[in-house]
Amino acid sequence: MDMERFKKQIDFILEADKEKEIYRQTHLTGYIRPENDAEHAWHMAIMIYLLREYSNQEFDVAKAMMMALIHDIVEIDAGDTYAYDTAALETQAEREEQAAERIFGLLPRDQYEEMKALFYEFEAGESAEARFAKSMDNFQPLLLNDYNNGRDWREHDVCRTQVEKRQSRSQKGSEFIWKYTKDIIERNVKKGNIKEN
Amino acid sequence: MDMERFKKQIDFILEADKEKEIYRQTHLTGYIRPENDAEHAWHMAIMIYLLREYSNQEFDVAKAMMMALIHDIVEIDAGDTYAYDTAALETQAEREEQAAERIFGLLPRDQYEEMKALFYEFEAGESAEARFAKSMDNFQPLLLNDYNNGRDWREHDVCRTQVEKRQSRSQKGSEFIWKYTKDIIERNVKKGNIKEN
Repeated sequence: MDMERFKKQIDFILEADKEKEIYRQTHLTGYIRPENDAEHAWHMAIMIYLLREYSNQEFDVAKAMMMALIHDIVEIDAGDTYAYDTAALETQAEREEQAAERIFGLLPRDQYEEMKALFYEFEAGESAEARFAKSMDNFQPLLLNDYNNGRDWREHDVCRTQVEKRQSRSQKGSEFIWKYTKDIIERNVKKGNIKEN
Repeated sequence: MDMERFKKQIDFILEADKEKEIYRQTHLTGYIRPENDAEHAWHMAIMIYLLREYSNQEFDVAKAMMMALIHDIVEIDAGDTYAYDTAALETQAEREEQAAERIFGLLPRDQYEEMKALFYEFEAGESAEARFAKSMDNFQPLLLNDYNNGRDWREHDVCRTQVEKRQSRSQKGSEFIWKYTKDIIERNVKKGNIKEN
């Protein structure tokens, strides 16, 4: 066995542990505390598996799950960028690119290439796997936030066009999820949790 | 679309969120805080994907990943049972069986059957997927604990035979991981982190 290869894999696995301390704007059900990236990715991967029947297209489930599991690893260096923070969104791509180089760069060459490709495929959002994984990336925090009576939206003073713009991307992965998402948005606008523009 | 089916899937997904508040004995790298079940499962699934070349047998990667992602969901009701807590281990099976019925029972019938089967397949540890997933269930906390200079072992006053008994099950999934595990145990016995019996 190639111990140098294995050592690199272990280095990456230990580095990835830091994702458990990157906190998001979304809160757990019950609003107990903010969710972290690792928990979000875990939840997304389960949703990809259980809700795969709603995807617009057939897709490779293992690939989409792995995509979900690693899609936020760059935030170990780049930090979490809130979906509605315009200034941070401008520098996000560059920060995440450098992070991808360093963190996936810990892996053996073939796996570095594979994980980087998987990360950029997710970012591009064009393949069937990326489309469905991205729907779940939107839908997972939406579900938690709706469960918490929209408190994350209220805290950030978010308005309908912002939520619709972000969430409408789910349509590429699942027409069904997007339809259900629109109902959730509508309900939360009516309740005043999301501001009518 | 069958909204009743979808509603059941959403109920399960929201219930699963509670796994993020089930804490384990293992601590994150840097000993910052205890790890929770969702983070542990996330880490395991990534390891299954990246270390699959070390499995003794070929296996279905998506299936093993999903197995890892859901294997601790029963702990939402049954709580975490520490690997070296003899009294708790005696009642573990019964507590987890009831939990599996209630929690997977939230899903539509076919997915309830599928998730329950996946959970018990993991528990039995006989299929190629379960064997490799179980190796990762052992190896993941071992890596964190070794990184933290064995502090979890020291806190619990754990001895060599206990660690060897538990960890030796990894051999069924991966001879290579078991060999590497033995080196880690040996090193930690020498340092006094694990008691020589």
